[in-house]
Amino acid sequence: MPVNYATPAPSALYPIAGVRLGVAEAEIRKKHRKDLTLIALDAGATVAGVFTLNRFCAAPVQLCRAHLAAGAGIRALVINTGIANAGTGEPGRQAAQATCAAVAKLLGIAPEQVLPFSTGVILEALPVDRLIAGLPAAQASLAADHWHAAAHAIMTTDTVAKAASRRLQVQGKTLTITGISKGAGMIKPNMATMLGFMATDAGIAQPLLDELVREAADASFNCISVDGDTSTNDSFIMIATGKGELAFASGQEPGWTEVRAALIDVARELAQAIVRDGEGATKFITVTVEGGKHRGECRQVAYAIAHSPLVKTAFFASDPNLGRILAAIGYAGIADLNVEDVKVWLEAAGQSVLVSEQGGRAATYAEAAGAAIMANAEITVRVHLGRGEATASVYTCDLSYDYVKINADYRS
Amino acid sequence: MPVNYATPAPSALYPIAGVRLGVAEAEIRKKHRKDLTLIALDAGATVAGVFTLNRFCAAPVQLCRAHLAAGAGIRALVINTGIANAGTGEPGRQAAQATCAAVAKLLGIAPEQVLPFSTGVILEALPVDRLIAGLPAAQASLAADHWHAAAHAIMTTDTVAKAASRRLQVQGKTLTITGISKGAGMIKPNMATMLGFMATDAGIAQPLLDELVREAADASFNCISVDGDTSTNDSFIMIATGKGELAFASGQEPGWTEVRAALIDVARELAQAIVRDGEGATKFITVTVEGGKHRGECRQVAYAIAHSPLVKTAFFASDPNLGRILAAIGYAGIADLNVEDVKVWLEAAGQSVLVSEQGGRAATYAEAAGAAIMANAEITVRVHLGRGEATASVYTCDLSYDYVKINADYRS
Repeated sequence: MPVNYATPAPSALYPIAGVRLGVAEAEIRKKHRKDLTLIALDAGATVAGVFTLNRFCAAPVQLCRAHLAAGAGIRALVINTGIANAGTGEPGRQAAQATCAAVAKLLGIAPEQVLPFSTGVILEALPVDRLIAGLPAAQASLAADHWHAAAHAIMTTDTVAKAASRRLQVQGKTLTITGISKGAGMIKPNMATMLGFMATDAGIAQPLLDELVREAADASFNCISVDGDTSTNDSFIMIATGKGELAFASGQEPGWTEVRAALIDVARELAQAIVRDGEGATKFITVTVEGGKHRGECRQVAYAIAHSPLVKTAFFASDPNLGRILAAIGYAGIADLNVEDVKVWLEAAGQSVLVSEQGGRAATYAEAAGAAIMANAEITVRVHLGRGEATASVYTCDLSYDYVKINADYRS
Repeated sequence: MPVNYATPAPSALYPIAGVRLGVAEAEIRKKHRKDLTLIALDAGATVAGVFTLNRFCAAPVQLCRAHLAAGAGIRALVINTGIANAGTGEPGRQAAQATCAAVAKLLGIAPEQVLPFSTGVILEALPVDRLIAGLPAAQASLAADHWHAAAHAIMTTDTVAKAASRRLQVQGKTLTITGISKGAGMIKPNMATMLGFMATDAGIAQPLLDELVREAADASFNCISVDGDTSTNDSFIMIATGKGELAFASGQEPGWTEVRAALIDVARELAQAIVRDGEGATKFITVTVEGGKHRGECRQVAYAIAHSPLVKTAFFASDPNLGRILAAIGYAGIADLNVEDVKVWLEAAGQSVLVSEQGGRAATYAEAAGAAIMANAEITVRVHLGRGEATASVYTCDLSYDYVKINADYRS
């Protein structure tokens, strides 16, 4: 059961002019499930992406990078679940190339115009023949209103499909954004691949979109995982079809601020949905660190808290075990941190409780007040380092029995 | 149930001339349990220690550092469980000082000759009056053969008392070493304080002992935790009483190599016992990384594998989920790692199975062979990076349901 998250209804996911999606059963690893998604783009779209920094990056990730760099104009994305096509060496690269070639032939485009994505078990060979055999059915189901179906088809250990959509007026013109994501990892998900695909009908020049996708990832998917500390297949793609009423050649044009904010907001919603559906999660936790000298050290402290299995089990137990939070702050690696200047609050449902200051328990703190906060399903840990003006937030969930169960059983 | 570990019998723990130990019930946090340990040293012992790098380090750790630096000659150690006296600010420092003063008064020594240690719940005040009231009983029980009782009295969430002892001949003379430790954290234990106390009857000059304690920690307690990534109270102390037949003024003297090796070996046994008693552990896992350019990068990769909750749950499930191991190697942070050069073996009970090479599954690997290795309680993951000659090992355990249960329930 995800924490305060339900898949939006199909009708709540606005189609994006210039994008059609189709799904099919290709029996990649199991029968009788939609495991193949094809996304076709009209000519003229700009596409940008950010990918895992894992050295064992999957074959499709290698191809995505090459095809985006080729600059031939991306016209299709193909996504399979079941097998990650990672740790598969040269045969894996050939399988990903064959996939792109098959999509290209079907759609009458070049292989370099296709981006491939895979998620699932790694170190096993992709059954590329079955994948290719499934493509005509995916093509036959291509439709602008199939975002909901695609959100379902890219799921692996996810318990709910994840999608978000917005329609708003900017400069008197309509902007539409729709996206889907998958992933059910807790923070630092290692192998629980995160995929995110977003499209807008605005036109966005390639350099501006390249910048925006990095910025959006930094405020969303990178706030639930650490740079580099990612699965073999993590990918986040932003598509600007240019078929709508707005178009941007540069960030100086009027309306860009609103469009940029709306796109980042959808990316954050898609990323947070992954945490809300965290394996075994019963709580959604925001860790906000303020008062740092720079953003980097704020993130460092926020991740130390968010990664601590002891902090995460305390949240599962609804136990205001502040000592575990202080210890995480203490070992986060700020060598000259003055613990006397650190303050910590627990916050939920509009309540804020100062729990620690001057290197210990706050004089005003009563355990009952902390326990009341911990009983909520959405909790913020707010830390002030007392060293500067920088701030950062990361999102995580608690660590429960079910996390162990899910990950011990994943392959069986 | 610890993995292949049982507390040595009292008779297997050799007394160390110049060391007496006493225990008592002080009702620090609970009634009817031995929670106070006093260790008295004859004059002339040298003592050295390494301590947590956590910025929220506990009051007793601060005092230990100051008292060792004072150089007045350490004559006593006092250890309480129940309350960690960490995150307690100025009142906490006063409580630790009052403890040292009371021990000093009782034994007729100076407060600077006392090292205090605490372990237990943090952010709660140490009931220093009850601690001091318990000291006479601890003093009354001082005896050279109370190592076993002391090993029990320093336990917190430990399921077994941890101790190790050696008696060997070096240069025709007898060397005796005995030590105890506590801690039940998995690797990266954060808050599960590790304490280690070792004594030998050899005489070891202060500079040599200072060097040795760091070296021993590096090969033992620091191989189950990361530098800096430690609890508020972690402490490791080495005592050389000089009451035996051997004495060393420098590392050049004959016999030092054997003595050094024996001391490090006992430290490693005490540290490994902590992993074997890891919270909820069902397996003891050695991660050995070879072929690195330097030891640092070998440790980095070893820790990435050992810290991954996904790798650890796979071991719990006896699932040879190699993908999770490869992914951890890939995100360990070696930016120029060539994954084609990496090899991975699973080893147990004298069997070695090559599972991965050339960026993927080894051609010779059969899942049944991997599964057979994973069925053992003691497993080695051996990685060769193919970049150089350096090597490093770390020790960890699996992540089970019981880990969550223990840590969710710890305070209740």
